[in-house]
Amino acid sequence: MKELETVKYENGSLIILDTSKLPNDVEYVEIKTAKDCYDAIKKLKVRGAPAIGVAGAYGLTVVSNAAPDDSFENYIKEVKTSAEYLKSSRPTAVNLSWAIDRLLKVIRKNDNLPVADIKRLVQKEAIVIQQEDIEMCKAIGKNGLKLLKENMGILTHCNAGALATSKYGTATAPIYMAHQEGMKIKVYADETRPLLQGSRLTAYELLNAGIDVTLICDNMASFVMGKGLVQAVIVGADRIAKNGDTANKIGTYSVAISAKYHNIPFYVAAPSSTIDMSIQSGKEIVIEERDPEEVTFGFGKQTAPKGVKVYNPAFDITPNGLITAFITEKGVITPDFKQKFNKIFI
Amino acid sequence: MKELETVKYENGSLIILDTSKLPNDVEYVEIKTAKDCYDAIKKLKVRGAPAIGVAGAYGLTVVSNAAPDDSFENYIKEVKTSAEYLKSSRPTAVNLSWAIDRLLKVIRKNDNLPVADIKRLVQKEAIVIQQEDIEMCKAIGKNGLKLLKENMGILTHCNAGALATSKYGTATAPIYMAHQEGMKIKVYADETRPLLQGSRLTAYELLNAGIDVTLICDNMASFVMGKGLVQAVIVGADRIAKNGDTANKIGTYSVAISAKYHNIPFYVAAPSSTIDMSIQSGKEIVIEERDPEEVTFGFGKQTAPKGVKVYNPAFDITPNGLITAFITEKGVITPDFKQKFNKIFI
Repeated sequence: MKELETVKYENGSLIILDTSKLPNDVEYVEIKTAKDCYDAIKKLKVRGAPAIGVAGAYGLTVVSNAAPDDSFENYIKEVKTSAEYLKSSRPTAVNLSWAIDRLLKVIRKNDNLPVADIKRLVQKEAIVIQQEDIEMCKAIGKNGLKLLKENMGILTHCNAGALATSKYGTATAPIYMAHQEGMKIKVYADETRPLLQGSRLTAYELLNAGIDVTLICDNMASFVMGKGLVQAVIVGADRIAKNGDTANKIGTYSVAISAKYHNIPFYVAAPSSTIDMSIQSGKEIVIEERDPEEVTFGFGKQTAPKGVKVYNPAFDITPNGLITAFITEKGVITPDFKQKFNKIFI
Repeated sequence: MKELETVKYENGSLIILDTSKLPNDVEYVEIKTAKDCYDAIKKLKVRGAPAIGVAGAYGLTVVSNAAPDDSFENYIKEVKTSAEYLKSSRPTAVNLSWAIDRLLKVIRKNDNLPVADIKRLVQKEAIVIQQEDIEMCKAIGKNGLKLLKENMGILTHCNAGALATSKYGTATAPIYMAHQEGMKIKVYADETRPLLQGSRLTAYELLNAGIDVTLICDNMASFVMGKGLVQAVIVGADRIAKNGDTANKIGTYSVAISAKYHNIPFYVAAPSSTIDMSIQSGKEIVIEERDPEEVTFGFGKQTAPKGVKVYNPAFDITPNGLITAFITEKGVITPDFKQKFNKIFI
């Protein structure tokens, strides 16, 4: 397995894989300033909640390392300004502000130490955040692996892969684990219109890892299931309500309905932090609508009549009844979800 | 309604709308020779089984009009050569050879008449073929209209529209009829990957006709249904087996499963000639697999990693159990399909 390092921090230097250039170009960019990091997140060079969090933490570490150490006041002034600036690169990404706040907390807790020591602690915390991300994905992978069997066909939608996290991904973690164990599996990747994360990213990273992956259009998933080629579906999640209703990339709901129709288990792989216990059901989740041009002009070419109305929801909600189980770092959670989520969070 | 004339024959001159240029350019090409007609069909300027049949018939009429009339032998020699040549432009299009053979039959039946008279009869037969196509679509439209109601949302997949026939289309015929009657309806058009017939053609022709149409990606259909925006699905058909199993553009099966899940009626609109009584069930229909580049390089741009495996079936089979009714020119056919098809064909 040739490893794709989405976010790499080594000897004080931060390198990010520009996923917006995939699959045609594999380009790494060095992040030397807060502006570099802001741009990398803003321009979707780095994407996926966990990867953004880790990139933000390392971005602030780079700022912290370069900040003045003549006085704490000068140091904290620079770091705080950059922290706010970095957070604003993608305001809705919860992991980003969460990771940055975690570093600020370390600074506050140690404000009596010399600035040089604080800098070391900040760097250490950022490394811990990435390590935790890797361990979390690994745990999801190990838990999910128990659900897989030799010669299985696995269908996935969008990219909840290594390119969205520090390593392994979430939906792809059981797949990588199975591959590592020498288990023979076959993956079907939905291309995932309109932005094609499935073809540009998932197909790319699985192919790169030497995993048997076949790309299909979203509307072919049912046909592939009907032919008996799929024994499990694994997708990621953007947000999970208290009752198990799951928001994920548009098209997930359609895949879940088809899986149910074909009696194929439908798994959602996600860290338990994705479960939002403040939301009772999927009805409370607001669906973001995106630019019509993603649909009509998605490939640098007009593919629909000018002036046509377009509906372009970015996510959909898969109701809990269509979900066989959640694969989390804490274990595999089967229904009744509400009751079991309560146990985890109490 | 600005009318789109896909195939227009007037005063001996044949004009074809180049649908391969839509939606960006509306270009008409004049067909003056057998070669012009061959190219128009081969290069998919004209597409859709009924439209190809009509174009072929008029193409042969153009040839017939220009053929020598000094002797029947010279006339028939030229017409027969061109007929075989035209048929070879799309050998699998049953309507094409059917329409051309119908003209040849007229010639054979009247080989005792002066060539000038035969030419007139050939032209007359071609016009009849187109008239029959228009009447057939109209009848489908009228029969389908009974199933529609004010304020309905109607979802369609691919293009079984006016651009694939002489007028009205098949799946779109009830929609055009409803619009003509002043019925308020709202159409959702699946873009239909990989070749985007839904966005390039269906959205184009409905928008052009002043019908309220909204373009969505294929993977959004379930979400739109879940939101209660769709009260009927109408699709076309490429081939219908004796038991009602229906081959149509890839993705149709997925839409049918979703419609069933949401208790939305799923209609197949097609001429009764699409019902192939020699096929017992969908299992006997071979699914054509097409070029992977349609998926990976569909828009003049590489959108998937090079070397990735691609599965690109052109059609799928919707089992009869997911079909609420067939809308044909002979009426609306509800289950048991096999029994009722037998009545039509005996």
